[in-house]
Amino acid sequence: MNQQPKVLVIGLGLIGASFAKALKSRHAAYVYGYNRGAGVAQQAKELAVIDEVVDDLQSLPPLDCIVLGVPVLAIAPVLEQIKPALSGLTLLTDVGSVKGEVVTIVQQTLGELPACFVPGHPIAGAEKSGLAAANETLFDDHMHIITPLASSSAAAIELVTQLWQACGADVISMSVEKHDEVLAATSHLPHLLAFSLVDTLSRESENSEIFKYAAGGFRDFSRIAASDPTMWHDIFLTNQSALLAVLRRFQADLSQLEQAVEQGDGAYLKQVFTQAKQSRDHFSDLLAARKKKSQ
Amino acid sequence: MNQQPKVLVIGLGLIGASFAKALKSRHAAYVYGYNRGAGVAQQAKELAVIDEVVDDLQSLPPLDCIVLGVPVLAIAPVLEQIKPALSGLTLLTDVGSVKGEVVTIVQQTLGELPACFVPGHPIAGAEKSGLAAANETLFDDHMHIITPLASSSAAAIELVTQLWQACGADVISMSVEKHDEVLAATSHLPHLLAFSLVDTLSRESENSEIFKYAAGGFRDFSRIAASDPTMWHDIFLTNQSALLAVLRRFQADLSQLEQAVEQGDGAYLKQVFTQAKQSRDHFSDLLAARKKKSQ
Repeated sequence: MNQQPKVLVIGLGLIGASFAKALKSRHAAYVYGYNRGAGVAQQAKELAVIDEVVDDLQSLPPLDCIVLGVPVLAIAPVLEQIKPALSGLTLLTDVGSVKGEVVTIVQQTLGELPACFVPGHPIAGAEKSGLAAANETLFDDHMHIITPLASSSAAAIELVTQLWQACGADVISMSVEKHDEVLAATSHLPHLLAFSLVDTLSRESENSEIFKYAAGGFRDFSRIAASDPTMWHDIFLTNQSALLAVLRRFQADLSQLEQAVEQGDGAYLKQVFTQAKQSRDHFSDLLAARKKKSQ
Repeated sequence: MNQQPKVLVIGLGLIGASFAKALKSRHAAYVYGYNRGAGVAQQAKELAVIDEVVDDLQSLPPLDCIVLGVPVLAIAPVLEQIKPALSGLTLLTDVGSVKGEVVTIVQQTLGELPACFVPGHPIAGAEKSGLAAANETLFDDHMHIITPLASSSAAAIELVTQLWQACGADVISMSVEKHDEVLAATSHLPHLLAFSLVDTLSRESENSEIFKYAAGGFRDFSRIAASDPTMWHDIFLTNQSALLAVLRRFQADLSQLEQAVEQGDGAYLKQVFTQAKQSRDHFSDLLAARKKKSQ
C-alpha cells in the first residue's frame, strides 16, 4: 500500500492512544481520533497522538479502518452509531481482553459478522491509564493476538497485521476459544488471585495495620490489584466460563498443597516448588529471548 | 559503647553477607565470618564483606555477638558447636523468616533459652542469593523485626537494636506469635499462591506453550515463584499453623469470588475490587512515606 491508510481510533485510553501515537509517529497511517466528550480528542491532537479530531461518529470521513478502543461492554452503542460507515471499511478491529464476548456483541448488534471484522488483543499494558499515559513504544516486542473469523476477509487480516507490525508488535493468530482460554489462565486468573489476596488481608485487620509489615513478596503480588476495578469486572463477567474452568483447576491444586503443608509432606512441596521454579525460569528465558530478538 | 562490638556472622548467604558488609562498611562492628566449606568465608574477606575468617566454630575468638545466618532447619547443628561460647556473649540472634520454630529449636538444643538470645527477622531480600549478591544497603529503609522473649536480657535487646539500626533498618519489636501470623499473611501465603499458580499453569500444557502468551500480570505474579524451593519448603513446614489459618481464610474468600463470577454478581465483584484497589493504594502510600522519611 503506497498511500497511508486512514485509521479512526475510537476511545483514546492507554491502549487506543498508544496505538494512535505509534501509527502517527511511524508514519504508518493518517490517524483520526474520537473520544466521548469533546476535550480528550482535542487534547490528543495537541499532544500529536492523532492527526485529526472526529466529533461525531454519525458523520465520518472516508476511512480504511476503525479500531474500537473502548471497554468491551461499551462496544455495542458505538457500533450502532458507526454502522452506516462499515460497508466502506477494509478493517474493523478492537483491543478487548476477551474475544468470544466481543464476537457475540458484534453479531448481535449488526445482525451479522462483517467481512471487515477481525478481533484483536494487544498483550501490553501499564500501571497508569488514560491518554496522559500514551506511549508510542508500548507495543514494541509485545504480542498482538488476532482471532480471524470464518467471515473475515483476506484484506482485513492483511491490514490488521500490517498496522500492528508497524507499531512494533509480533502479530500472532489463534482461535477465539484458544485466546480466551490462554488469557483466562495467564492474565485473568492472576488478577483475580491478586484482588482476592489483598481483599483477604484487608479483612485481617480493620485498620490495615498488617500492610505496614508487608514486604517484597506482597508488593509484587499486589501491584496488579491496583488495576481498574471496572475494566476487570467486565473481563471476569465476559470470560466467565474459561475463567471458572482454570480457577477450579487452581483451587484443586491449591488444596493439594494445603494438604501437603498440613501433613508435613515435604517431598511433595519440594517437587511442586522445584517444578514451579523451572517453569518460571523457562518463562524468564522466553522473555529475554523476545527482548534480544528485537535489539 | 565506645569500642566496636565483635560480631560473628555464621552463614554468608545474601542476608548474612549483606549484614556483615553493612556493619563493616559503616564501622559499626569488627566482623568475623564463618561459612561451611573453606572457600566462601575466604572470598568474603577478599570482598571486604568481613574483617576476619573463622575456620572452626569450636574454637572461637572473644565475641560480643553471634548472628545465625543459616536456614532455620540448619540452626540446631550450629548451636551444638557454638554452645561453649554462648556464656561469654551479650547477644545471640538469627535472621529466620519464622520465629516460633527457631525459639523451639534453641530451647530444645540448649535445654534453655539463654538471656543473650533475641530472635530477629529482617524484612528484606533480593532476587539473587548468595555471597555474590551481598549488598550493604539492603536493609536501608527496611524493617527489622525483633521478637524479644521473657528470658531476653536488656543488654541483648539493646545490642541487637543498635547493630540493625547501624545497618540502616527500622527496628520494630513484636511477639513471636504476632510475627508468625503477620508474615504468614503478607509473605508466606503470597509465595504459596505464586508457586501454586505457576504449578497449575505448567499442568495446563505439557510443553509450557501457555507461557509464551503470558504478559505483565503473570510476570509480576510469578517472579516470586523463582525463589529458592528449599528455603520455602522449610518456611512452610515450620510456620504450618499460621500459614494454614490464613490460607483457609483466603480459600473461603476466593470461593465467594468464584460464586460471584458464576452468578454474574457484578456488584459484589466491583465492591471487592474497589476495596482491594484502595488497600493496595494505601499500601503504596505507606511505602512512599517510608522511603521519603529516609531521604
